[in-house]
Amino acid sequence: MTNDEFYMNLAIENAKAMKGQTDPNPLVGSVIVNNNRIVGIGAHMKAGEPHAEIHALRMAGDKAKGGTIYVTLEPCSHHGRTGPCAVAIVEAGIKKVVIATLDPNPIVAGNGVKILKDAGVDVVVGVCEKESVDMNEVFNHYIVHKKPFVILKSGSTLDGKIATHTFSSKWITSEKAREDVHRLRSENRAILVGVNTVIKDDPELTARIPNGRNPIRVILDSTLRTPLESKIVTDQKAETWIFTTQAHPPDKREKLESLGVRIFVTSGLSQVDPEEVLEVLGREEVSSLLIEGGGHINASFIEKRLVNKVVIYLAPKLVGGQNAPTFLEGTGVNNMSEAVELKPMMMEPIGNDFKIVGYTIYKH
Amino acid sequence: MTNDEFYMNLAIENAKAMKGQTDPNPLVGSVIVNNNRIVGIGAHMKAGEPHAEIHALRMAGDKAKGGTIYVTLEPCSHHGRTGPCAVAIVEAGIKKVVIATLDPNPIVAGNGVKILKDAGVDVVVGVCEKESVDMNEVFNHYIVHKKPFVILKSGSTLDGKIATHTFSSKWITSEKAREDVHRLRSENRAILVGVNTVIKDDPELTARIPNGRNPIRVILDSTLRTPLESKIVTDQKAETWIFTTQAHPPDKREKLESLGVRIFVTSGLSQVDPEEVLEVLGREEVSSLLIEGGGHINASFIEKRLVNKVVIYLAPKLVGGQNAPTFLEGTGVNNMSEAVELKPMMMEPIGNDFKIVGYTIYKH
Repeated sequence: MTNDEFYMNLAIENAKAMKGQTDPNPLVGSVIVNNNRIVGIGAHMKAGEPHAEIHALRMAGDKAKGGTIYVTLEPCSHHGRTGPCAVAIVEAGIKKVVIATLDPNPIVAGNGVKILKDAGVDVVVGVCEKESVDMNEVFNHYIVHKKPFVILKSGSTLDGKIATHTFSSKWITSEKAREDVHRLRSENRAILVGVNTVIKDDPELTARIPNGRNPIRVILDSTLRTPLESKIVTDQKAETWIFTTQAHPPDKREKLESLGVRIFVTSGLSQVDPEEVLEVLGREEVSSLLIEGGGHINASFIEKRLVNKVVIYLAPKLVGGQNAPTFLEGTGVNNMSEAVELKPMMMEPIGNDFKIVGYTIYKH
Repeated sequence: MTNDEFYMNLAIENAKAMKGQTDPNPLVGSVIVNNNRIVGIGAHMKAGEPHAEIHALRMAGDKAKGGTIYVTLEPCSHHGRTGPCAVAIVEAGIKKVVIATLDPNPIVAGNGVKILKDAGVDVVVGVCEKESVDMNEVFNHYIVHKKPFVILKSGSTLDGKIATHTFSSKWITSEKAREDVHRLRSENRAILVGVNTVIKDDPELTARIPNGRNPIRVILDSTLRTPLESKIVTDQKAETWIFTTQAHPPDKREKLESLGVRIFVTSGLSQVDPEEVLEVLGREEVSSLLIEGGGHINASFIEKRLVNKVVIYLAPKLVGGQNAPTFLEGTGVNNMSEAVELKPMMMEPIGNDFKIVGYTIYKH
């Protein structure tokens, strides 16, 4: 590890510690070094509060002068609450700026660097770039596409089943894995299931961990079959948004709305188009969506290439059954060469299970 | 690691290196130590040739006297080609014997130890016992049950599929994983598929790696639909055994037999009972069987609790499809609590895929 990597790693660790509390802003960390000593550290902690560099500059005070600042994301060039960070860096007398990654928004990328270079500051870009990009995968996606970053999550047996042929499904995975799911829920802005899951399981869809942040509960429900007495309607633990079609019964809509549920009537005549759901969620500033559907809901998003990341909790079990449901149904691809690749596919043990994480590469 | 473990590990490493060449005998390694120096090493290399202890004693010569011998399996008490090893150890003047594990055959276990103790030799049992038992899982099973140790092998996508809904299946896994399958074939005495696989894929079912040992090809074929021109009938690369039912056409049997295929007519009227297949294979001294069937053949063995070990090559892919076949079909268990557990479930990367290995624990 070089010195640059050492300091940037510290900036990244501080940035990551804020995961879940900076939304809709990205995770950013910063370290200031002068005469081989760290003189300031900072991280962005909450939208509306100072950026990471400002915290670090304030901590360093006079000792910033002549020093090097490490920052995980290109310093901003726009006038926010604390002025452009690039200008603040110049004014503090910093000699060198080491940046992990440029601003992901292609329209503004490079503007912060330009301000710095124009002022005669040395600029290095790309130290620990991958780590910095990875930790902000949600933000980087949303800022470019204005649609949520979509994670498909499922718990599955080794033979791909999410229930037996009699639809027995409790429990597939161990308690540790289920706890991790609650963390995942807490890290995402919204969670999506189909109405059949609501009817069958009456789930809460909340993040049941200490300090868990409950996601918005998004239900796909073509004809508003969501029971009025279901937990997602009555428990007031988080917002519930139902996406329905032109075929919905207006009286049921009124009842649900009177109970505090938001109803989005899509253009679909009989089915809700997943693409339209993501567009609406994007407009509503939902930057991340966790899909916890059954095999058909999951397939409807995969088949339209809308899933960005897959998280599977694989249990060391076999249930068998030609009619037992798998976590990905629908029609599926025709040829094996068209299969959706997961790259890289990472695996880690969690309790008795394995957590598998991969990013989708579509070939169909 | 203690000294005892250090020497026993060396004995185990030497034993393991002979995997695939000692059949039907177990893997056994031995090390002789005197005055803190290794004075002899040995391993059983081939059935009919000396046991591990005899090789090590011959290498040590006079220096065995007063020494300690490490041996992964209890020295034998029966008169084989080289006399009982326990007696040879006593006659060489060995003072102490460290054994990893007793003879797995309950009828003879302890007899070797008794000879040694009666002669005043110190005996320690249980050093590195698990490693020694694990490396001889096939032998340990066969010697007790007189039926083959059964490994179920499959290549699968992350969503459990072995083909798309159009039955496209080439290739699910990477070349490295497929090479590992050939090694698995080489390590097992027989390989089993259903006749549908023969008709559809016309496979060779051979071990296509350098020095690969081709397994006996066992086909379940109720009505002898195996095509006369299929590779397993014509290529002469390994024996082919077909298990059929009372409902088989005698003329087809004659034709297959005239081409060198062995036909086993089971008691089944319309279906071949997997249990009967294992009994017959056991009588034929087949100690290990690799099942590479489709979802139905695999399920027929799992549902009768006949599979001992599962090896799955998991590809970083999703194909989806409600009608796409999974590697375990049949009816399946009713309740999730009855799922077959795999314990421990081990995972290692292999090429782009993951190799998952587990031992079955049946709950139904």
